[in-house]
Amino acid sequence: MPSPSLDFWFDLASNYSYLSVMRIETRAAQAGVTVRWRPFLLGPILDTLGWEGPPFVVQKEKGAYVWQDMRRLCRKYGLPWRQPSEFPRRAVLATRVAVLAADEPWLPAWCRAVMTRNYGDDREVDSPEAVAQILTALGLPARQIVDEAGSDANRLRLRERTQAARDLGIFGAPTFFAGEEMFWGNDRLEDALDAALTARQASGGD
Amino acid sequence: MPSPSLDFWFDLASNYSYLSVMRIETRAAQAGVTVRWRPFLLGPILDTLGWEGPPFVVQKEKGAYVWQDMRRLCRKYGLPWRQPSEFPRRAVLATRVAVLAADEPWLPAWCRAVMTRNYGDDREVDSPEAVAQILTALGLPARQIVDEAGSDANRLRLRERTQAARDLGIFGAPTFFAGEEMFWGNDRLEDALDAALTARQASGGD
Repeated sequence: MPSPSLDFWFDLASNYSYLSVMRIETRAAQAGVTVRWRPFLLGPILDTLGWEGPPFVVQKEKGAYVWQDMRRLCRKYGLPWRQPSEFPRRAVLATRVAVLAADEPWLPAWCRAVMTRNYGDDREVDSPEAVAQILTALGLPARQIVDEAGSDANRLRLRERTQAARDLGIFGAPTFFAGEEMFWGNDRLEDALDAALTARQASGGD
Repeated sequence: MPSPSLDFWFDLASNYSYLSVMRIETRAAQAGVTVRWRPFLLGPILDTLGWEGPPFVVQKEKGAYVWQDMRRLCRKYGLPWRQPSEFPRRAVLATRVAVLAADEPWLPAWCRAVMTRNYGDDREVDSPEAVAQILTALGLPARQIVDEAGSDANRLRLRERTQAARDLGIFGAPTFFAGEEMFWGNDRLEDALDAALTARQASGGD
C-alpha cells in the first residue's frame, strides 16, 4: 500500500506560498503524508487568465489588506516577516534551481532559504549572486548548480512544469492536490492533508 | 469593562458569508464575544472597485473551484449545501429586512433562514412571497415587516450601511472588525474572535 501523498504546487515569488513552504514539512510529517514538491511559475498562468499581475496587486484595496494578513499569519505561525519593498519579486533563476533539484533531498531547504530571504529579510532572490550565496550557505556546489539551472534543458523543464500546472486548472498558489482533488491556498493545507489520508484509505488494501 | 465584541459585515447573497452566518453565534458564544451583525450589499462596492461581478464569477477557473470548496466546507462544518442554480442570487428585500431588524433578537435567525433557503435548498430569497414565507415561519408579522422594510426610510438605512462598509475599506464578504482591525473571509472567523478578546484585554479596565 503506497504511503499517502500530497502534490504541493507553489511559486517562489508568491507570498501565500511562503507560508506553506515554511509549514508543510512539519504538518505533513505530523499527518504521515509524503509531500511531492512542484515549483512552477504563476506569472505566465495569470497572464493567460487575463490578469495584469497578482489579483491583489491589481486590486489595491485588497492589496493593502494582504500585507496586514501576512503580518498576522507570520506572527501566528512563528515565521519571520518583513514586508517586501518589491512585489512580486522575480525569482525565475531560483525556481529553475528548484526544478533542477526535483529529486534532491535539499529541495525543501532550498525553497525555505529563498523564501525567507525574500519575505523574512526583504532581499532580492533572482540574481546569480544571490542564488549562489544561498546555495553556498546550504553547502552546495553553487557554480555548477547555477550553470545547470540555466541550461536549455532545465529551462524547458520549467516551461513544461508550468504548462502542467495550467493543464491541471491551477489559477493561484499555493495549490495542493490530494489525488485529483484540488485545494487552493495556504488556508487549505490542513484540509488537503486530511484529504490525502482519506484518499489513501478509500483506495483500500495493503 | 465592556464585553469583547466583533463587528460582522456580511452580504446575504454571498456564499462565503453563508458559512459565517451559520457558524458565528456558536463560535462567538464559545469565545465569550458579542457579535454585532452588519448586513450590507457587496454588489455596489464591487461596482465601485471596478469588478463586473463577484471576482470568482468574473474569473471562471476560480469559479469552478469555489463550488468544490463550498461543498467540502459545508461537509466539514455540517451545514446543508446545494449548489445554487442561480448565482449571485438577488437578496435585496431580505437584506432590507435584516437592516430593519438591527436591534431585534430574531436577526441572526432571520439571516440563517434566508441563507439556508438559498444555499441549502437552492430557492430564491428576494420575492415578497419568499420573504413573507420565511418571516411567517419564524412567527413574525410578515406583512408589517415587509412594508416597513420597503419604506423610504429603511431603504436609505441600507444605502447608508453600504456606504459605511465602503468607508471602512471593505472589499469582500464576510469581513470582521475587532476594533479597527479588519479580517476578511470566513477562514478568518476564529482569528478575528481571538483578536476581539486580545483587543479587549489590551484596552485594560477592571
